[in-house]
Amino acid sequence: MVLNGRTRGTVSAANQKKVLDAAAELGYTRSAVAMSLRERRTRTIGLISDEIATSPWAGRMVRAASMAAAERGYMMITADLSLPELTLEEAVKVLSERQVDGLLYGAMGRTRLAAPGVPAGTPLVLMNCEEGDQSAPAPRTEHSPPAVIPDDRQGARRAARRLLDVGHRRVVMLSGDDTAVATREREEGFVEEVAAAGLAPRVVRAGWQMDDGYRATTALLAQDEPPTALFCIRDRVAAGAIHAAAVAGLAVPQDLSVIGYDDEDFFAEVLTPPLTTIALPHEEMGRHAMDTLLDLVERSAPAPAPGLTVAECPLVERASVAAPPRG
Amino acid sequence: MVLNGRTRGTVSAANQKKVLDAAAELGYTRSAVAMSLRERRTRTIGLISDEIATSPWAGRMVRAASMAAAERGYMMITADLSLPELTLEEAVKVLSERQVDGLLYGAMGRTRLAAPGVPAGTPLVLMNCEEGDQSAPAPRTEHSPPAVIPDDRQGARRAARRLLDVGHRRVVMLSGDDTAVATREREEGFVEEVAAAGLAPRVVRAGWQMDDGYRATTALLAQDEPPTALFCIRDRVAAGAIHAAAVAGLAVPQDLSVIGYDDEDFFAEVLTPPLTTIALPHEEMGRHAMDTLLDLVERSAPAPAPGLTVAECPLVERASVAAPPRG
Repeated sequence: MVLNGRTRGTVSAANQKKVLDAAAELGYTRSAVAMSLRERRTRTIGLISDEIATSPWAGRMVRAASMAAAERGYMMITADLSLPELTLEEAVKVLSERQVDGLLYGAMGRTRLAAPGVPAGTPLVLMNCEEGDQSAPAPRTEHSPPAVIPDDRQGARRAARRLLDVGHRRVVMLSGDDTAVATREREEGFVEEVAAAGLAPRVVRAGWQMDDGYRATTALLAQDEPPTALFCIRDRVAAGAIHAAAVAGLAVPQDLSVIGYDDEDFFAEVLTPPLTTIALPHEEMGRHAMDTLLDLVERSAPAPAPGLTVAECPLVERASVAAPPRG
Repeated sequence: MVLNGRTRGTVSAANQKKVLDAAAELGYTRSAVAMSLRERRTRTIGLISDEIATSPWAGRMVRAASMAAAERGYMMITADLSLPELTLEEAVKVLSERQVDGLLYGAMGRTRLAAPGVPAGTPLVLMNCEEGDQSAPAPRTEHSPPAVIPDDRQGARRAARRLLDVGHRRVVMLSGDDTAVATREREEGFVEEVAAAGLAPRVVRAGWQMDDGYRATTALLAQDEPPTALFCIRDRVAAGAIHAAAVAGLAVPQDLSVIGYDDEDFFAEVLTPPLTTIALPHEEMGRHAMDTLLDLVERSAPAPAPGLTVAECPLVERASVAAPPRG
């Protein structure tokens, strides 16, 4: 009672002190697990990630989820599937053995997957991913776990629209060299928006890293009718594109406009020039996923699960887009 | 016994299946905590970090620690001090309530600190930090927690040596604009090595981000006797320096050599040109810290604690350093 602060006047101050001193000396701490026997919760959430937790890409999503959990008195335990020999099944098992109240599956890059089987009564929420395979999402049923994904298609349309609005007509997308969901949706959004403006969309399969952007841009700028604007699938690719322009003697945005995707922390805003980009709603996804999960954990009676949430990717205006050069 | 796989022929296969089926239907999972009542361990390690776990900088250190833990059957729980209102004391408390077997304190950037008080019997290891304050490390005693830090001074000497060895005499360090331990030790190492070669060391306080490197380099290249080589306090700063050189019409490394620090994943190797740099031994520090901690957790009798480990920062040779231009 003393350790839990529930003495209600039944224990003298002197005796309370004795108990606390003895506990300190013995190194005793309250057990959240023992306390949870009454409230039947450990106030611990398991995060299963495909490398998300220790990768540089989606840290702010994990951070937002972690903050949302902390605000409601929960902690996160992480199982990282990039660890050797840790399968999805094994991750569910090691987290369940630690009596987690709920499970969050978070993807580093947006993806589709077969949701893991979880112990009955353990809620599951998918973050930056949904059920399905590369070709299509799975039809949602009442048993589908809640999921939150970014609106990559709309984000890409927004990027293309920004370039078209200031007068660009020779616009190229530097895309990924893979068939990931994000790659395809961003390509589709770009193509739709450019085609709707009556122009022929051009997509170059470059890759996802800085040197991919550098190489693709160097090749494009050597062509007879080089683009006046680039939409890059990621801020990292945009950084390579801006550097390639400098090496070719072109200024961004006066000679070439560049727009990125992600709004990566400590990156987009410290490029020269600061990068105009489309933001991935990492904070929003992390917070929404955790709040949805905790709502499921804390409600006493079953209720219809929330469905699929599609988070907007807004335009972040900085200094890498301008009207095309004359001539 | 069935659930723990300890039937030793006393339970028929049919009855084993009944138990397993019933457990599955009820959503029952083994409790690691209940199991730990016998072995008196939860096989869970608490990581207290100052933003490390969700920052892009030191992810591979956390990953290495996590892998070392997994190999020995342990999991990590993380408390991130960058969460609002989570003090160091509170972090120790929430982790201890979850009955962790040991605590790891990990710093995102190298630092010195007052080690947190921990419950008696709970081992503590410091990762990328040591006891002390900005001016000096605290004298080590038998009660000092084991710690692992990088050898920033030696790493910086190595960088300067690399530039001097190929003939550079106008060498400038782009340093941080703060008084962090890493900033001072890298500066000191650089100054020592350049002075030992009979040259006057030049240090510019630029900052830690890409735009800091860009601005400082642009200013340096406009001087009468611009440097022929730059040692940058971080790969990010080096990226800004390389871009500034391109805008000024200079090629790296033909006109200007650039060497970085960190060997940041997905960054140094995909710059154009690929960056010669000094690697922070993140994997080594993460693995060493966790192994040291688990050795303390698992040994039954007290023994002298391991002391301070200083991990080497090796040179990673790529393509951004060459002999100075003639003339």
